[in-house]
Amino acid sequence: MIIVKVGGSVFSDKTGEPENFDHETVGNLAREIAQFYPGESFIIVHGGGSFGHPQAKEYRIREGLPGDWETAHHRRIGFTLTHQAMLRANANFIQTFVREGLPAFSVSTSSVFVTENGEVVYGDLEVLRRLLELEFIPVLFGDVSIDLAKGIDILSGDQIITYLAKMLEPEKVIFLMDVDGIYDGRPGEGGLIQNLGREEIDSLLERLHCTASGTDVTGGICNKLQEAKKIAEHSEVWFVNGKVPGRLSGAIRGDGFGTRIRS
Amino acid sequence: MIIVKVGGSVFSDKTGEPENFDHETVGNLAREIAQFYPGESFIIVHGGGSFGHPQAKEYRIREGLPGDWETAHHRRIGFTLTHQAMLRANANFIQTFVREGLPAFSVSTSSVFVTENGEVVYGDLEVLRRLLELEFIPVLFGDVSIDLAKGIDILSGDQIITYLAKMLEPEKVIFLMDVDGIYDGRPGEGGLIQNLGREEIDSLLERLHCTASGTDVTGGICNKLQEAKKIAEHSEVWFVNGKVPGRLSGAIRGDGFGTRIRS
Repeated sequence: MIIVKVGGSVFSDKTGEPENFDHETVGNLAREIAQFYPGESFIIVHGGGSFGHPQAKEYRIREGLPGDWETAHHRRIGFTLTHQAMLRANANFIQTFVREGLPAFSVSTSSVFVTENGEVVYGDLEVLRRLLELEFIPVLFGDVSIDLAKGIDILSGDQIITYLAKMLEPEKVIFLMDVDGIYDGRPGEGGLIQNLGREEIDSLLERLHCTASGTDVTGGICNKLQEAKKIAEHSEVWFVNGKVPGRLSGAIRGDGFGTRIRS
Repeated sequence: MIIVKVGGSVFSDKTGEPENFDHETVGNLAREIAQFYPGESFIIVHGGGSFGHPQAKEYRIREGLPGDWETAHHRRIGFTLTHQAMLRANANFIQTFVREGLPAFSVSTSSVFVTENGEVVYGDLEVLRRLLELEFIPVLFGDVSIDLAKGIDILSGDQIITYLAKMLEPEKVIFLMDVDGIYDGRPGEGGLIQNLGREEIDSLLERLHCTASGTDVTGGICNKLQEAKKIAEHSEVWFVNGKVPGRLSGAIRGDGFGTRIRS
């Protein structure tokens, strides 16, 4: 089984029109997956891009449910509007995959996961496992979540993948990004790292000045590397450019261009 | 807690245009619920009406997944398209409820329930219980389901309610229909039954010529009564006209017009 994370920046321009969706890129990704289905099984997890983020920010979902009833009520409304926006992104994925003949099936993240400060503490994988057995392609997404510490929070696609990798022990996890992989420096600067051992991640984190709580000047790469370190305990991890046709299928085959982290 | 079932015929004309939605009726229902929220907690379950049924029928979802791969693949596509159609009906509900200031939150039925020949055998209610604690109004819907016997099947809104009534022991279950309640005969003929004891259901089923497997000439009333008999073990049950303003709030208060089944 292969888990594919489609980063928000791959299918949507966060700085563009609200809820823009790059049908061409997602169509290409679906066609590459179709080359390996049903021989290989897949789970897709996508981010938000221009979907969901505006609502999550406007209603301050990450701050949780406060004690004051009026403020909490306003935030509950934002919680449900954020989920509906993510369902619209998800519907675009399902439609595009179905058009390529793939039985992609929407699984609502917020219906099955519970978080504590944004990390998964409970996930019901019953339906997910059975969907895989029946040769469906489950499609999950970064979403709002019921949170044990804060009442409500956001569950990122990357967090979902860390949890799924631990529970399902996939053969491979492939992160699709809008750059070619992990660089030894800012994206575009420094050299692309094509091979990385799990044991080398800590020293790379240090070279990139990633701190546990600190600012992330490398475009979210620190967080990604930290999650990748956890995932690599269970699975091979790839970071490839989802905007360039052929990169996803290269990673699926195992001879592609990008960053490969051996488990 | 009160569970409200909004029958497909209340919000949608099954014989009309594909995916027609009666925003006025659902707006009225939301406003009536808003009179009692947050003092009272609610779960909403809606049917399909003109949503979902065409796909479920075209792709023969109820026949399950056959052994032949091509036929099974075609049916998998129909399964996912049926769910997407139900999500569109659900999005209309969420939008209408939010407009009335209610934090209705979409829970994807197919993400949390597993059936066996269309009856719920597994349901993860973790998220649902927490949503209620946090004063959300969960909105579920009749949907496709992973089925232990047939691979895939349809899970009706009525079946969901029977399961939820057993697990959550609500104070009241209210079925909204497009007629005034249960009649002693065909809808519109015979007299409206305003009060019915649980122990009287069997003799009514006999008078209506309902048989366990037989044809149902009373517009689905046999099935509804059979489910109501199970639900009445746990909860008071009401059948009221969802098209007539004031009937839902009457049932919520307990002095409304319709059929009341004492538990």
